Amino acid sequence: MKTYNYPNKNKWTLLSQRPILNQNDLEQTVNSILQLVKKNKDEALLELTLKYDNVKLNNVKVGPLEITKAISIVSMELKTAIEQAYNNITLFHESQLETESKVIETTTGVKCWRKSVGIDKVGLYIPGGSAPLFSTILMLGIPAKIAGCKDVILCTPANENGNIDPTILYTANLVGITSIYKVGGAQAIAAMGFGTETIPQVYKIFGPGNQYVTKAKELIQQNGIAIDMPAGPSEVLIIADQSGNPEFIAADLLSQAEHGSDSQVILLSNSLKIIDDVKCELIKQLEKLPRKETALGALNNSRLILLKTIYDCIEFSNIYAPEHLIIASNNADKYASKITNAGSVFLGNYSCESAGDYASGTNHTLPTNGFSKNYSGVSVDSFVKKITFQKLSAQGISNIGQSIEIMAEAEGLFAHKNAVTLRLNSIRND
Amino acid sequence: MKTYNYPNKNKWTLLSQRPILNQNDLEQTVNSILQLVKKNKDEALLELTLKYDNVKLNNVKVGPLEITKAISIVSMELKTAIEQAYNNITLFHESQLETESKVIETTTGVKCWRKSVGIDKVGLYIPGGSAPLFSTILMLGIPAKIAGCKDVILCTPANENGNIDPTILYTANLVGITSIYKVGGAQAIAAMGFGTETIPQVYKIFGPGNQYVTKAKELIQQNGIAIDMPAGPSEVLIIADQSGNPEFIAADLLSQAEHGSDSQVILLSNSLKIIDDVKCELIKQLEKLPRKETALGALNNSRLILLKTIYDCIEFSNIYAPEHLIIASNNADKYASKITNAGSVFLGNYSCESAGDYASGTNHTLPTNGFSKNYSGVSVDSFVKKITFQKLSAQGISNIGQSIEIMAEAEGLFAHKNAVTLRLNSIRND
Repeated sequence: MKTYNYPNKNKWTLLSQRPILNQNDLEQTVNSILQLVKKNKDEALLELTLKYDNVKLNNVKVGPLEITKAISIVSMELKTAIEQAYNNITLFHESQLETESKVIETTTGVKCWRKSVGIDKVGLYIPGGSAPLFSTILMLGIPAKIAGCKDVILCTPANENGNIDPTILYTANLVGITSIYKVGGAQAIAAMGFGTETIPQVYKIFGPGNQYVTKAKELIQQNGIAIDMPAGPSEVLIIADQSGNPEFIAADLLSQAEHGSDSQVILLSNSLKIIDDVKCELIKQLEKLPRKETALGALNNSRLILLKTIYDCIEFSNIYAPEHLIIASNNADKYASKITNAGSVFLGNYSCESAGDYASGTNHTLPTNGFSKNYSGVSVDSFVKKITFQKLSAQGISNIGQSIEIMAEAEGLFAHKNAVTLRLNSIRND
Repeated sequence: MKTYNYPNKNKWTLLSQRPILNQNDLEQTVNSILQLVKKNKDEALLELTLKYDNVKLNNVKVGPLEITKAISIVSMELKTAIEQAYNNITLFHESQLETESKVIETTTGVKCWRKSVGIDKVGLYIPGGSAPLFSTILMLGIPAKIAGCKDVILCTPANENGNIDPTILYTANLVGITSIYKVGGAQAIAAMGFGTETIPQVYKIFGPGNQYVTKAKELIQQNGIAIDMPAGPSEVLIIADQSGNPEFIAADLLSQAEHGSDSQVILLSNSLKIIDDVKCELIKQLEKLPRKETALGALNNSRLILLKTIYDCIEFSNIYAPEHLIIASNNADKYASKITNAGSVFLGNYSCESAGDYASGTNHTLPTNGFSKNYSGVSVDSFVKKITFQKLSAQGISNIGQSIEIMAEAEGLFAHKNAVTLRLNSIRND
């Protein structure tokens, strides 16, 4: 982990850069997977699952017996924990739903409003790998249901025995997912984007994944399928003043670092003592971690930066545009109002990132890689489209008709003008 | 224009298909323009403007004198019309801004909220061509300003004399656009996406355009630049019962058809008489249109479909997912609640599409090509990102800490668990 003392402002953009991934051949490989699934559908899924996941399946759909069995296996302790998270995430996301349409009468007789309608068919992707990411099912499934999406399907790879982790099945069932399929990687994205005999086509695809999944989501957009957001490795930036707790800060940096060796963690502080103390704590805590090697890899991409003031730290952070931003300070509330680019912000010494990752109620599917400059994290908004409505009375079209005629004529659109003229004439003749 | 009487339901998806555009070589051509601008910046813009627009410019930036002159040229009548539209669009879009953060205490001591922050730098593209589309400047510039975007720049091609239509400059100035540049086509998208010596890089690009512009917007996303939505030719679908007015319906179909020969217009009705009467009106009104040839081209892609009931028409419309939907009926309000896929809906005989195109207050930048299944039209939402915040007190982390520990451990993320454990220990020891 490199330390930078008072770097010049003209270096900040450089220090805000993420590690660049080598993506040679990725597009070609992923494209060939997409085309194979488009052509051979279920047959291609079984073939690719054997090839990449080393499992021979006869059918990708999870049956009701597998779900019932999973529900009985998950421990009561874990179920209770998941339930608390479920309740908090539900409470926060329910507050995001626009239930009533605000009708605005822009001119007498001209009423405009909009209505949120759930996207009919959405697909969630949950990666496999070393651990079952059931928390992401809560983060995607709960807002999908609140939004009113009718069909919410889920794809996740089976393990070497052809099974899915019971906690995944339990959580999917809890949030009301319609159908679950054993398919992972780019082939899962292809299946949901094109549809197969077994897996229905969806209109929008959500969820994290490795670089094959990410590239597949990027490419599937060219077929008119929407995605949640572009993705990149996870990251945290911590701003700490002398009231920050070095032990907590080190733990938060490590909890991001253990996600993957491509993760990035950054500490900004106006206190050299905090930076030194965090370094000591990092070494101490790192020793005890099961994922020590992974965390160490991530720390190599990472930076401890000493700046003159906390306002400098905030300015740097807004340039970096972090996915997660922790403000480890007793004055966090005061600084929060200056944040313009971030996915999710954690205020004060007790607001650790893992609270938001699991159970505070906010969503953990967030824009990485600087995308918090132009994208929001997942929310109920991500699962609806907003339709606008307008209703003009005879008085309404009389009040704005002439302006429309003049503007349409100035744009050379005479049929647009005529649609108004005919109505104005008809009202005059009544 | 083809008529279909009571087509079988299994034909509806086929009848909902849009004309397919031939896009051979398009990606390669556009990609080479993007790369040239990325490499040679302003020099490339001047070169490409000479090549494609046949104008030799020395500088792409519009100066203050050009704007002052434009303001003096635009007629008072047109200014007054634009001002009425400006006021209505402002009223409706201001109602979309979330000004206060609803704080949700999901568990005692765990507070979550979110805040809308304008995207710092946005770029608007306004096409040139046969008419100055100043109305689109209102539709993009007004929500950008309401959202609080700091830099709002605009690119639009100059005419053969190197000038921009005065109404474009007048409207851009009215809505408070920071800088205006004389550059069009894929090169304008490249300039805003990569930045040049003169044109600053932006984080999100908005606006309509031909297939080169559309492809450039699609490709620029791979560089982390967001776009408003995927685009396609404009379209209207009208649902009419016997209370619809055939003269108005024909005028509305034609006002969409005059946009371009690739536009699509569809009429659904449960009344054969309405369909026959609309056909007669179309022939009568078409004769008088300056853009007769264009409209005729669009009518060739278009369909008049007789169905048994208005509810069948609504079901068809939801499959088609139109950009503009007019419900030409005295019972429009009743039917409106059944609409699940549409960009903007016009209710009743006095709500013509051109009202929404110019001055009712709703936005006219809408999802085409069936994208209203999964995308919303432009609104203030399009110009903000929503940042989530959370603040946990000692009591808050005590209340949810154990659930986080259990879930993190079940996901194999021990550093996530440890970030909570250290805090819980510290509280117990206090």
